[in-house]
Amino acid sequence: MTQKAPSLQMNEAQLMTFMREVFHQVADDFKVDHVTENEITMRLLISEKHLRPGGTVSGPSMFALADVCAYLVTLAMIGPKALAVTTNCSIDFMRKPVADADLIAKGRLLKLGKQLSVSDVLLYSDGQEKPVARASLTYAIPPR
Amino acid sequence: MTQKAPSLQMNEAQLMTFMREVFHQVADDFKVDHVTENEITMRLLISEKHLRPGGTVSGPSMFALADVCAYLVTLAMIGPKALAVTTNCSIDFMRKPVADADLIAKGRLLKLGKQLSVSDVLLYSDGQEKPVARASLTYAIPPR
Amino acid sequence: MTQKAPSLQMNEAQLMTFMREVFHQVADDFKVDHVTENEITMRLLISEKHLRPGGTVSGPSMFALADVCAYLVTLAMIGPKALAVTTNCSIDFMRKPVADADLIAKGRLLKLGKQLSVSDVLLYSDGQEKPVARASLTYAIPPR
Amino acid sequence: MTQKAPSLQMNEAQLMTFMREVFHQVADDFKVDHVTENEITMRLLISEKHLRPGGTVSGPSMFALADVCAYLVTLAMIGPKALAVTTNCSIDFMRKPVADADLIAKGRLLKLGKQLSVSDVLLYSDGQEKPVARASLTYAIPPR
Repeated sequence: MTQKAPSLQMNEAQLMTFMREVFHQVADDFKVDHVTENEITMRLLISEKHLRPGGTVSGPSMFALADVCAYLVTLAMIGPKALAVTTNCSIDFMRKPVADADLIAKGRLLKLGKQLSVSDVLLYSDGQEKPVARASLTYAIPPR
Repeated sequence: MTQKAPSLQMNEAQLMTFMREVFHQVADDFKVDHVTENEITMRLLISEKHLRPGGTVSGPSMFALADVCAYLVTLAMIGPKALAVTTNCSIDFMRKPVADADLIAKGRLLKLGKQLSVSDVLLYSDGQEKPVARASLTYAIPPR
Repeated sequence: MTQKAPSLQMNEAQLMTFMREVFHQVADDFKVDHVTENEITMRLLISEKHLRPGGTVSGPSMFALADVCAYLVTLAMIGPKALAVTTNCSIDFMRKPVADADLIAKGRLLKLGKQLSVSDVLLYSDGQEKPVARASLTYAIPPR
Repeated sequence: MTQKAPSLQMNEAQLMTFMREVFHQVADDFKVDHVTENEITMRLLISEKHLRPGGTVSGPSMFALADVCAYLVTLAMIGPKALAVTTNCSIDFMRKPVADADLIAKGRLLKLGKQLSVSDVLLYSDGQEKPVARASLTYAIPPR
């Protein structure tokens, strides 16, 4: 009854290449730092367009990073599937990110089923200890 | 024990003016169509930057509209408070929005407390009957 | 491209009978008041076991009602499927329910897909105007 | 600008005593295994009333454990405050718990603010490696 953990199907460079193909408008905003089985660390390279008055990162930018993070940690385990779609995201905004640091996402794949994957993500301002946000996301995986 | 419903503090034009002051980078992407007590209808004016390959609107654009919608339906009832911040959002993506129509948001303020407001929002592609997404959002209201 | 709305597959009595079969431990706590296409009204018959000190209904009791409500509004449209399972629930507790009134749930089916249904639910203390909680739930539907 | 982490205000025995005072109806269903700064491990002692046909633990029982877990990890850091209330819970049900093992909850306090605490919780069937559910919860903390 135990599921054998699938092994890693895509590495950092392969995830970046895939992202440039399917999200060419925004792929250069993101960088995959490290991926292992069921875990990923990546970042949003903060620039003017991600900021809000008061020197902070916008909510949609935080959402975008959490969403891409959950997508890539899923694809890392199942291989490139452009058609996987987010079905649910719950996000808690806990602290104000700083404007002059990248936003780091640490994602974990908690479940990889046939139809759904579930991940959670913690977001940090680079160099800070406490998370600025947490998110959990569900992806619907297209039939194999 | 019953709470008297507060009356409307800001109309459509006042909400737009306020949004241009505090979100000048993105305010022109949004338009408030109609606001009444505890209810708002607004839209995201879809342009190239909101789209994704395959002719659809991006997840972060849908999140951004839901977030602004919940913010404005709260402010409409309490008056301009730039410092109100989103603390939680849960969003379900249910159907693919079309690329060539504005995204409409219909928001309801379900609770207006001293510290928190709770709203829910349905998102539609303009002209379509079925919602593309639903969201619920909590805002922390700064002390008055 | 438009989906034809499926018609009602189960009425109030059929939903109650089904619930007694699959949830015999708790079925008598619930009552389906009214079901129509994509909408349901039902109640939790409040008794001592649902209460908490301070004269209010417990959180798990509110969750249980929202969960059953989303399940039944889905089944009403697809027919009896004991194996449908909740995959996600997001719930906001907004006001304290009263102890001496039933808890009413008004559920809407927002999406009925092949694999997933999405519903939202408002909970009320019977006789009160303002909702005590809101919830959104996703059900995974077994292959037909 | 960094917040000093508050130290532990209540240990396992104090949390159990407090729970028996404020939740006397259900306190004996729960046991706190271990609490440290910002982290707790506790369990639901599974009995007949928590089960569902098919040999699994009910959704409301899982919700109840996640809710108590987030409450206690908050109280462990701020001391006994019976009036703290859950304002939001998002829960993902990922695998079927087994009927003949306790349900274990591992909770982390991610944010402890003046008005709100945010925690996340992973639930496991005792002895199993993969989580059956994840939840994130927000508590409103009464003014000190």
